[in-house]
Amino acid sequence: MALELGYTADYHVHLRQDKMMKLVTPTVKQGGVSIAYIMPNLVPPITSLDQVVKYKQELEQECDSTTFLMTFYLSQELTPELVEEAALKKAIRGIKCYPAGVTTNSNAGVDPNDFSQFYPIFEVMQKHGLVLNLHGEKPSTSNGDGKDIHVLNAEPEFLPALFKLHADFPKLKIVLEHCTTKAAVDAIHEINKDLKQGEQPNVVASITAHHLYLIVDDWAGNPINFCKPVAKLPDDKRALIAAATSGKPYFIFGSDSAPHDVRKKAVHTGVCAGVYTQPFAIAYLAEVFESQGKLDKLKDFVSTFGNAFYTMDESKLRSKQKCWLVPKESVVAQTVSTQDLSVVPFRPGAKLKYSVEWR
Amino acid sequence: MALELGYTADYHVHLRQDKMMKLVTPTVKQGGVSIAYIMPNLVPPITSLDQVVKYKQELEQECDSTTFLMTFYLSQELTPELVEEAALKKAIRGIKCYPAGVTTNSNAGVDPNDFSQFYPIFEVMQKHGLVLNLHGEKPSTSNGDGKDIHVLNAEPEFLPALFKLHADFPKLKIVLEHCTTKAAVDAIHEINKDLKQGEQPNVVASITAHHLYLIVDDWAGNPINFCKPVAKLPDDKRALIAAATSGKPYFIFGSDSAPHDVRKKAVHTGVCAGVYTQPFAIAYLAEVFESQGKLDKLKDFVSTFGNAFYTMDESKLRSKQKCWLVPKESVVAQTVSTQDLSVVPFRPGAKLKYSVEWR
Repeated sequence: MALELGYTADYHVHLRQDKMMKLVTPTVKQGGVSIAYIMPNLVPPITSLDQVVKYKQELEQECDSTTFLMTFYLSQELTPELVEEAALKKAIRGIKCYPAGVTTNSNAGVDPNDFSQFYPIFEVMQKHGLVLNLHGEKPSTSNGDGKDIHVLNAEPEFLPALFKLHADFPKLKIVLEHCTTKAAVDAIHEINKDLKQGEQPNVVASITAHHLYLIVDDWAGNPINFCKPVAKLPDDKRALIAAATSGKPYFIFGSDSAPHDVRKKAVHTGVCAGVYTQPFAIAYLAEVFESQGKLDKLKDFVSTFGNAFYTMDESKLRSKQKCWLVPKESVVAQTVSTQDLSVVPFRPGAKLKYSVEWR
Repeated sequence: MALELGYTADYHVHLRQDKMMKLVTPTVKQGGVSIAYIMPNLVPPITSLDQVVKYKQELEQECDSTTFLMTFYLSQELTPELVEEAALKKAIRGIKCYPAGVTTNSNAGVDPNDFSQFYPIFEVMQKHGLVLNLHGEKPSTSNGDGKDIHVLNAEPEFLPALFKLHADFPKLKIVLEHCTTKAAVDAIHEINKDLKQGEQPNVVASITAHHLYLIVDDWAGNPINFCKPVAKLPDDKRALIAAATSGKPYFIFGSDSAPHDVRKKAVHTGVCAGVYTQPFAIAYLAEVFESQGKLDKLKDFVSTFGNAFYTMDESKLRSKQKCWLVPKESVVAQTVSTQDLSVVPFRPGAKLKYSVEWR
């Protein structure tokens, strides 16, 4: 039986630039997503009104039914005044914070040990309801005097910074993006432990599709499964599946779909981090939700909770069609390609039980 | 000042077959190693006298000064009678045990949860002083009813099997190969805790060069650093460095140098496991030992302890030249290549403080 999923939203999307943008932007709709929240880690990063307006226009030219929500890249370039102007003009919906050096195009990022220089910006964000999107990892270090940080504990070690931010800005809307550990899931539960039925959370976590499938073994030797944060242990994966299917309003879908040309994946060193899930996003999720007997929670995860958190105004949608999940097999493409580019999607060749339709 | 290292030995070497064998066999000597203990995971695995004699002849044709010690591949093909015959003819020095499916060409391997079917063979090995070389990992599993096994705990979870084997065959010489965790180092210390000065251990661990450099971050996104067992956490690396430089006779050098053509490394899925260290083996080690102020322990690690454990008969050496460490910079090649093959060595382009000479 077909399942109506509403105005589906992916609150963490990388659509890149130029040829890659043209290739992957139409796959947002193909994957069953109506609303795409767009990451700003372009080259150069998006830190001005002109950039964000121009980028949105470019994206809108590639697909006339996808609604694009835009973001700034948190960096020294931003000022409280600029952020306020962007908020008032509704040019952006949030600001993405990358710790320096942890993933693709994060070199302009910040030091997660000290957010205080950005507090004037966070004040403005809190005032205007802008969302702070946190890449929640500490940069790796094992040569200093302090504690070792590596790709496996980088997220748990970031969590105290999340608690501090929330304590300092209790009304600021914060997303712990693409969380990958039981520790992160537990932290989000802890922050929301007193949330009453029907009340809106201020701190939520986004969860990707691929982290519901992968553990460390799956990216060891398989660059197409390598992303940041890296997939962790079986216990972590089980905690993520439980969170995504929990029906709790503080776990929302953000695919972190991150396309790279296969020539940047099939290299012996310096593999680009990112898993590309966009063209089959909802079908990947449906497979997992069904395996847990929780298909009835899928709409919450991919529409209701995220749209409520982001106070998505349905009157602003570019299309009023809703996504329907239909019990019709889809086969993941081996590649998504043009003449110049070839991106290998997650689980190439896999048979998925579901497809999506727009009605 | 130059340092005499004696008859250097690498007690864990993969020299492959055919063109790859011809390419890499001469690099044993180039890397500063006189005695090479040869792994049997060819295609098909080495499980007969004919195979092992023929393979040794082939290797000897490629380098007239390297001494090759040969092994069988533990599998159902072996019988106690065959092992006894091989021991009496001195055709092999030991037998390598691969758990099924954990690394390159290990499909014919054994179930590490139950070694009992091989006990008749271990009896013969113990009687003749043959060495059992254990790849100490349990195969990954996270779907069964039991404990999750993944690439990060596969070695610690194997250790009870090592203790049981040693308890059942206390005189059997066992090597826990390429150990990668503090847990494994601690287990070897524990087994040898009552060893008296000058007494020979029956259970030792081999340690590679690359595991003295790498942690999980270094192979995440860098297929040339991906090997099995995978490099673990900073604490594990520190424990390995401490063990290798400890001057304890139960830690010996085995490079596990495992060449793959770069075309099997630069792929987006199914990367071959293995790090190629052979051409600079001793120089990589010297760099680490020097950083710890332990250059005086290098000869123990690369000659004395391993040769004592394997009761290496110096009169059987094909060359009586000794390896000398000289304080002359060497630069790691970008590739080791022929027309058909190209292998990228560990740390391509790195400047190392030392070189080797034969005198």
